[in-house]
Amino acid sequence: MSDPHEPLTESVRSLIDAVIRTEVDSDQIAAAHTHVTAALEILGAQLMPGSFGVRVTPDGSSEPCGNVLIGQRNAIAPPLTVDRDADGLVSTEVDLGAAYEGPVGHVHGGVCSLILDHLLGATAHRPDGPAFTGTLQLRYVRPTPLGRLRAEAWVEHEDGRKTYARGRILCAGQTTVEAQGVFIRPKAHRPAG
Amino acid sequence: MSDPHEPLTESVRSLIDAVIRTEVDSDQIAAAHTHVTAALEILGAQLMPGSFGVRVTPDGSSEPCGNVLIGQRNAIAPPLTVDRDADGLVSTEVDLGAAYEGPVGHVHGGVCSLILDHLLGATAHRPDGPAFTGTLQLRYVRPTPLGRLRAEAWVEHEDGRKTYARGRILCAGQTTVEAQGVFIRPKAHRPAG
Repeated sequence: MSDPHEPLTESVRSLIDAVIRTEVDSDQIAAAHTHVTAALEILGAQLMPGSFGVRVTPDGSSEPCGNVLIGQRNAIAPPLTVDRDADGLVSTEVDLGAAYEGPVGHVHGGVCSLILDHLLGATAHRPDGPAFTGTLQLRYVRPTPLGRLRAEAWVEHEDGRKTYARGRILCAGQTTVEAQGVFIRPKAHRPAG
Repeated sequence: MSDPHEPLTESVRSLIDAVIRTEVDSDQIAAAHTHVTAALEILGAQLMPGSFGVRVTPDGSSEPCGNVLIGQRNAIAPPLTVDRDADGLVSTEVDLGAAYEGPVGHVHGGVCSLILDHLLGATAHRPDGPAFTGTLQLRYVRPTPLGRLRAEAWVEHEDGRKTYARGRILCAGQTTVEAQGVFIRPKAHRPAG
């Protein structure tokens, strides 16, 4: 990996899970805490102000490394990897563990909406800029168990700067949540005509 | 704090932020990584299977310590503290930093939906059990900047096991996202009559 932050971020993802699920005694918790504090002191010695934003790479692409859902430096992010097929279908497959729990053993309904917001929005993104959510409607068909899930989204139609998109979350082939939404590109990114 | 996990979780929250925002060199990143790995080894020596679920306390209340939004042991959770006033208004005030970023400098739209899903759902919760999201509709009025925000939700009306709720996110007194949704209590928790 080119960015030394990535393996560190991956370990912090495991740490988030371990803090939730650990059953070691309080002395061990304290010992682990000492290490976390030491890591924090090292990293905190020099922090950028504010948030990460995007990093423009030498090849001209922009990477939102701090993004809560896809950021390679954000341990909250599973991270989601968004694939696009030739027909314009946008999809992702992701394993959600204990850290994404809402109802016992299940993904928090709001995490489903977070994933669908991002995925439906991705159908409207263009290389020169992102689209912003205008409206989003979610219908929860059945609970989404923790574990492996698939999410997909597609464009229903476009109207100027507006993209009307639909999508769903699937678990073992069954739809658990359906979504539809309108995503808007800022005026600066409006295509000519 | 009675639970020794809580101060550890709080430090891991700071660590998530520091990993995103640090500007130390790769040797320092590696040194921090060594500490994270050591903490992980200690905590990982004994892990519960699956997810945390809920812990029933001696006073009979149940605590979803692993919950992605309110869990005291979940470093992804800000955590949200949900207040209820005498009129039934449910609200929270929370600081969202770099780890919740979507558009540059702003809260990810899906994080807004996560918070609103939880808060609107909280209007329908009863001491003997949670409510599940049936539908949720979101309207994004303006971008939500990172930083301090307030969210509130209230019951519009109830119909048997269904609660119709509304809510919004406010930033510096201005509404950024509006929501409405239907939340359903499982049949086992249906009130008599």
